[in-house]
Amino acid sequence: MDPLFQTIKKYITLTPEEEMILTGLFERLPLKAGDYFLKEGKICRHVAFIEKGLLRYFINDDSGEKTVFFSRENEFVCNYQSFLPRVASTKNIQALEDTRLRIISYDNLQRLYREIREGERFGRMAIEEVFLMAILQLDSLYTDTPEARYRQFLDLYPDLVQRIPQYYIASYVGIKPPSLSRIRRRLSARP
Amino acid sequence: MDPLFQTIKKYITLTPEEEMILTGLFERLPLKAGDYFLKEGKICRHVAFIEKGLLRYFINDDSGEKTVFFSRENEFVCNYQSFLPRVASTKNIQALEDTRLRIISYDNLQRLYREIREGERFGRMAIEEVFLMAILQLDSLYTDTPEARYRQFLDLYPDLVQRIPQYYIASYVGIKPPSLSRIRRRLSARP
Repeated sequence: MDPLFQTIKKYITLTPEEEMILTGLFERLPLKAGDYFLKEGKICRHVAFIEKGLLRYFINDDSGEKTVFFSRENEFVCNYQSFLPRVASTKNIQALEDTRLRIISYDNLQRLYREIREGERFGRMAIEEVFLMAILQLDSLYTDTPEARYRQFLDLYPDLVQRIPQYYIASYVGIKPPSLSRIRRRLSARP
Repeated sequence: MDPLFQTIKKYITLTPEEEMILTGLFERLPLKAGDYFLKEGKICRHVAFIEKGLLRYFINDDSGEKTVFFSRENEFVCNYQSFLPRVASTKNIQALEDTRLRIISYDNLQRLYREIREGERFGRMAIEEVFLMAILQLDSLYTDTPEARYRQFLDLYPDLVQRIPQYYIASYVGIKPPSLSRIRRRLSARP
């Protein structure tokens, strides 16, 4: 089955007519590894569903790039801080692998909410899910040691540790690459 | 007008009949300063609307209490990490002032989503708003200095600096109280 419909059907039911409508609301966007889905300074004009591939969110600050989030297959990707109020993004979203996206514009998303019977319900539940992810990450930054944060990364993204360069993972954990190497050695030395 | 209805009407329209239904879905809960809306280890069984007062969210970890969020009048308060999957909370939510809440149970919230025409839409938009707050805070922890974080606190909560003890604000900013005092002296010395 179409992975986009499969993901939407985790939340709501779709009639065949609604699947037809949905198909028309999304476009396809292929990205090469290194391409940007969103650059800072631009308005994020789409929510994307990832059919295949992997993206990272990062912010440029005085001390360089800070990697703050990853999204991969069967997840949605968007900078809602830019998309919802339609203001310039302070964040970049870049493909780390060749990636296939299905993208929906702001206006088409409003049509989805209006024309799909349970569209609003889907929107509410999908946003609840990313909200819980954000809170988990936030709490972890307040309370966890870097080692605990790395272990949380392994729990949340067991499939990604081989796909993401170590220095991006270190940035996400909030430490320098040598500190991450020490943590990895310590964890691998444990029985 | 009823402040709860006023807040809901920022997002959706309500018929008089729907206001009647809503009134029955919420209960009143007064809290004294120091009382808990939620204690860690318990399941968060309600979303609350704050008619009057102020609450703080905190987590106990090895090094003590970490204050991670505040909510005040005309905002909703809930630990969605516990409420949505109905698991024990790792967080405490405590009233910092005498507080008047309107609370809605999980089951009644599902009724709100079903029985109010635009209930799902309201839920989607309300959760979008708290999600954006969480992301703002998350980005700030990754990229901002403590001084920038304190200034962000003043921007987000200009009314709260007089209502919240300094050591809770320091904890929210992620620093010790003496560091916050130095930042405050530095900021007040500026022309």
